[in-house]
Amino acid sequence: MSENKGLVIVFTGNGKGKTTAALGMALRAWGQGMKILMLQFIKGGWVYGELLASGKLAGLEIRQMGEGFIRGGGQQEEVHRQAARIAVEEARVEIASGRWDMVVLDEIVYALGYNLLEEQDLLDLIDIKPAGLHLVLTGRNAPQSVIDRADLVTEMKEVKHPYRQGIKAQKGVEF
Amino acid sequence: MSENKGLVIVFTGNGKGKTTAALGMALRAWGQGMKILMLQFIKGGWVYGELLASGKLAGLEIRQMGEGFIRGGGQQEEVHRQAARIAVEEARVEIASGRWDMVVLDEIVYALGYNLLEEQDLLDLIDIKPAGLHLVLTGRNAPQSVIDRADLVTEMKEVKHPYRQGIKAQKGVEF
Repeated sequence: MSENKGLVIVFTGNGKGKTTAALGMALRAWGQGMKILMLQFIKGGWVYGELLASGKLAGLEIRQMGEGFIRGGGQQEEVHRQAARIAVEEARVEIASGRWDMVVLDEIVYALGYNLLEEQDLLDLIDIKPAGLHLVLTGRNAPQSVIDRADLVTEMKEVKHPYRQGIKAQKGVEF
Repeated sequence: MSENKGLVIVFTGNGKGKTTAALGMALRAWGQGMKILMLQFIKGGWVYGELLASGKLAGLEIRQMGEGFIRGGGQQEEVHRQAARIAVEEARVEIASGRWDMVVLDEIVYALGYNLLEEQDLLDLIDIKPAGLHLVLTGRNAPQSVIDRADLVTEMKEVKHPYRQGIKAQKGVEF
């Protein structure tokens, strides 16, 4: 077994901390001088602290691909599906490019749950990964096929959530 | 309920991603222009990517207080306990100082589990928190008293871990 193996890492579950852990992983890798690309498959509507941060950090790039949180279906769903197709294609190009030490596909598993992409699309992305690349996938309800291909899987379980206690989303924490 | 409320956030459980999520939260807050202090209660022995990163980021400060991972007991345990006492005292001063928007006490809950500090020490730190300060606590086996005082609690559950498959710790992921 090689010392330098790119891992497939999955953060799943219904609790807060999946995207946040992926960000933390990106920061740690950035600290090691690595080049990191984060593609956000779902978020897109508002300005996140991580976007502000990445604008200041050479070597950590975050691109919002998705169309904001998914509500309702119909016509809007087709817009989301189109955005997901473009994001998958971009992920494919970037993963294969050899330009990155770590690629984070944020909320790709969530997009899968909304049928915005096929399970096979995601498995294909894992399969084309260069040996040294760390690939981080986030989103609730990771299917078994993804878990089977992963080296590290953590389930984030919600124990207590501030929204349920009537506390609004806080700057620096949720965005 | 105020719009700007400092939250008490707990990342617990046996899975990987607790410190990593705290780091991600620090990066997000940093992106928002906040000032963040992270005190590491346990780690201390080796150079982490997050330490390298924080050295390059004005406004995000990480201090290693602890004595490395805990092995064995006896004399070494007293060294750990002494380090924990100093860390608690430093946390108390910094939390009360008003200099920070977010304070992360990394692995403080883990240190609690090793009886390096008293549960009451931790509860006191929560109680003195200024209203606007976000306080992030990590470590496995958070006691109910801590969960009761928290606004957001996520349990990181291990689903799959690379060590169990004979894969060594990887740069940019684990350190």
